[in-house]
Amino acid sequence: MKSDNCGINGQTSLDLDEVERYCRKTTLLKPSQLCDYLSLDILLASETFQHTGSFKFRAAICAALNSRGKELLAASSGNFGQALAKAAQIVRKPCTIVMPEQAARIKMEAVKSFGAKLVLVDTSRETRAQALSKIASANPEIEIISAYDDDRVIAGNSSLGKELAQLDFEKIIVPVGGGGLISGISLGLTRAGHKASLFGAEPAMANDACRSLESGHLVANESEPPTLADGARTLSLGQRNFKIIKESVNSIYEASEENIKKAVFLLFKYANLKVEPTGALPLAALIQNREHFASDKPVLLVLSGGNVDPSVYCRIIEAEQSN
Amino acid sequence: MKSDNCGINGQTSLDLDEVERYCRKTTLLKPSQLCDYLSLDILLASETFQHTGSFKFRAAICAALNSRGKELLAASSGNFGQALAKAAQIVRKPCTIVMPEQAARIKMEAVKSFGAKLVLVDTSRETRAQALSKIASANPEIEIISAYDDDRVIAGNSSLGKELAQLDFEKIIVPVGGGGLISGISLGLTRAGHKASLFGAEPAMANDACRSLESGHLVANESEPPTLADGARTLSLGQRNFKIIKESVNSIYEASEENIKKAVFLLFKYANLKVEPTGALPLAALIQNREHFASDKPVLLVLSGGNVDPSVYCRIIEAEQSN
Repeated sequence: MKSDNCGINGQTSLDLDEVERYCRKTTLLKPSQLCDYLSLDILLASETFQHTGSFKFRAAICAALNSRGKELLAASSGNFGQALAKAAQIVRKPCTIVMPEQAARIKMEAVKSFGAKLVLVDTSRETRAQALSKIASANPEIEIISAYDDDRVIAGNSSLGKELAQLDFEKIIVPVGGGGLISGISLGLTRAGHKASLFGAEPAMANDACRSLESGHLVANESEPPTLADGARTLSLGQRNFKIIKESVNSIYEASEENIKKAVFLLFKYANLKVEPTGALPLAALIQNREHFASDKPVLLVLSGGNVDPSVYCRIIEAEQSN
Repeated sequence: MKSDNCGINGQTSLDLDEVERYCRKTTLLKPSQLCDYLSLDILLASETFQHTGSFKFRAAICAALNSRGKELLAASSGNFGQALAKAAQIVRKPCTIVMPEQAARIKMEAVKSFGAKLVLVDTSRETRAQALSKIASANPEIEIISAYDDDRVIAGNSSLGKELAQLDFEKIIVPVGGGGLISGISLGLTRAGHKASLFGAEPAMANDACRSLESGHLVANESEPPTLADGARTLSLGQRNFKIIKESVNSIYEASEENIKKAVFLLFKYANLKVEPTGALPLAALIQNREHFASDKPVLLVLSGGNVDPSVYCRIIEAEQSN
């Protein structure tokens, strides 16, 4: 089934009221001890307590509510998968999620707990896109939902931008993978008339968005980069996302794997927050590019999610605390 | 200096407005996945994002604002120490915190970061009370603040009860160490006219409060019990706390060390929350005494704090995930 992808770049505009009814408000935290450590005033918007533990639920519920497909299908290394599984459960549609075999077990379990069908792919033999096509061609009633390159997904994420637009800040840093979150936040802020400078944060080893923004055209990674920030292992930004990013994002800052680990630890130690590596990207990029973030008003960091394999998490915490 | 301990059982009543201005509102979370796991509707009030990472700041700021001592002194294995250190910094009074040598390093660092003086005691040679007396007798301007047996401390904690009284629930479970939190919550709920049944949660190996409530008189542990829930290693409830507990607490439920670890892990896994073992006591007691908590309305669990040594925390998470 062709994706029913109308809304933002297209003609019609989606109503956010229903999306907002299903979503939780983001959790705003002022981490005093972390501010002292950084000598900088920061504010955190944590999506770790959103349904299914990440902002992706905003995207997924908006797509599910506005899909004409009788079944939903998506490829996801994790967060979008469980978010769409839950959203499909809410709208009472069958759902299939395709995941790489090496995805975090905790994310696989979550997908299944929401009643979705899980299909594992050996990505050394078949791309996720190939696996999706195969399933979709066998079932014409199924609709493939992109985790980021979809106007409904961007609209869902714009609900977070709309919330954040209530706050007084000059600079905001957002994790970048496929670009769904940052383009949604851009839209939400812009529509509310907020004038903040918008920055992206990306792993240095997966810096396609940074290179795309600098060159002015979409650049892709050659293969999926093995960054700890698994939500940023995308090959490139989505077309729709890049269009918005080009117009509204000031810069995309890179973060080393070392700084991603450090950021996860600092959030644990100074803010009592359990954040996944992708969610810690804004803090990691801030540490690495500290000189760009002097500000009279607090710098707002969007912590996109908290779902991380317990072993991976504990390896980071234990290694960092002995540093 | 004699403790200026007026307020609740005494004649005057403390004004909570100033306390509330300094404190953060508690963070209310509905952990859907944890509810599914437990097959029970629960609601979490997390004090892990309170200033200094635990509810103790409510107590400390109320005591500091209402103390006539020129300096403040307290013994604390951790959370009250850092809370009073920060409160003293706010009211600009010198502060000394006495801690056992084996206290968590992360809590020692925090005390020092707020500008307080840290005195370490070898508890095999000297009790904390002895150490306190020695310091106090050398300095007549200093006031010793009890972490729980103090009307100002109870009043500070009642600010949490007052907040929770806005919510619709029938049963609430609160961690019990010295009894400062549960007596404060009792007071806050009662004053607001809330009729919830109030339950305590205590480590089985430190069950003095449970035994006290059952026998009707204050029972003490013979020595400091080595429970993982270090905030409940107190020898007994405070006199003031017990008086309130006897009148208002329905039962105090015990939690095994195994269930405390399990609760820490479940909060990590299903709610993305980093909670210290003492803070996880209500969930641990709920798991262990599940049959007593059927309810038409959500059961409210108070998660008292999030400050835990990273190594201790990771040992729990890694061991539990392989169970």
